[in-house]
Amino acid sequence: MTSADDHKEAMQALKAKQREKVKKAEHIDRGLILVHTGKGKGKSSSAFGVTARALGWGHQVAVVQFIKGTWKTGEREFFKRFPDQVHWHTMGEGFTWNTQDKERDIAAAESAFEKAKDLLTSGDFDLVLLDEINIALRYDYLDIDSVVNAIKERSKRTSVILTGRDAKPELMQLADLVTEMTEIKHPFKAGIKAKQGIDY
Amino acid sequence: MTSADDHKEAMQALKAKQREKVKKAEHIDRGLILVHTGKGKGKSSSAFGVTARALGWGHQVAVVQFIKGTWKTGEREFFKRFPDQVHWHTMGEGFTWNTQDKERDIAAAESAFEKAKDLLTSGDFDLVLLDEINIALRYDYLDIDSVVNAIKERSKRTSVILTGRDAKPELMQLADLVTEMTEIKHPFKAGIKAKQGIDY
Repeated sequence: MTSADDHKEAMQALKAKQREKVKKAEHIDRGLILVHTGKGKGKSSSAFGVTARALGWGHQVAVVQFIKGTWKTGEREFFKRFPDQVHWHTMGEGFTWNTQDKERDIAAAESAFEKAKDLLTSGDFDLVLLDEINIALRYDYLDIDSVVNAIKERSKRTSVILTGRDAKPELMQLADLVTEMTEIKHPFKAGIKAKQGIDY
Repeated sequence: MTSADDHKEAMQALKAKQREKVKKAEHIDRGLILVHTGKGKGKSSSAFGVTARALGWGHQVAVVQFIKGTWKTGEREFFKRFPDQVHWHTMGEGFTWNTQDKERDIAAAESAFEKAKDLLTSGDFDLVLLDEINIALRYDYLDIDSVVNAIKERSKRTSVILTGRDAKPELMQLADLVTEMTEIKHPFKAGIKAKQGIDY
């Protein structure tokens, strides 16, 4: 047998395996629950990537940013171009070390969560992105049971992505997909400033 | 001291630490090299998220897909809306278990790489995304030294993102940032079909 034959045979075996896997997989007629956590980069970026993908299919997307402040970011500037498809809410008032006021932070997180609940139950969205909600949960600015309930009671149509490091076990338990972003090498640690169009 | 004072003090310390970190960080006047690898989801998605971010700042972006076939994806449909800002090239002919022809796969990978080299050196782009190039490298469809050289010889303006599992050590060595996406829980393995607007 030639090397080309070997290759063809190996690829046919792979294809058969893949087909079997796809055949077994169940098509579920409901939105998925995705958690992006870990200390590495890419948690919010990949949620914005999924946002772009959903928009490509004509889906309706809502974004609630729990922690990000009001400074200009590339993602917000970009997705603002699609007011008919993207509903964008930056509710946080910046990182906690900027506000230095726990009561104000809690109020901001709760207000963002009220908005999120409306969006999740409305039935108007294919995808709701709760960006950095894990940070609000980690500091106990939000109650985990309330968040779990809101996700369970969401519209059947709606997929939800929850981002931020230190995702609570209750969320990971509930999720269909959990991805952990692990930092192998980081430019900030190597002494490089955050870069426009890459980091924000 | 009240609990609110404690909080304020802790947050002030965090803020000071953060400021010190930012002050020390160096602003480098060149494009960065980012590698997204690992078995988890989010490698390409987060690259598309960074693409959205870059477009928000008015940047020019080029995408070369090394492995993806010609089927319809949400990301391509979406970014096709911005022909003035995004140059999109799907050069692969689908996954290798579909073509079952190693010579054809190698020719497709090489043709994609020739295109990538032009884009990297042109100076016309702020960001070049080499999607799934790691797969082409893993199967030795491309020569790692040629890829490393092409990245080193890119325009100073151009950041580059390389995605795909099993990134070569030579690439991780060269990169400013390496993120590994780790699969904690995966819907496909749990028997759920890939979902439009989420997975493709």
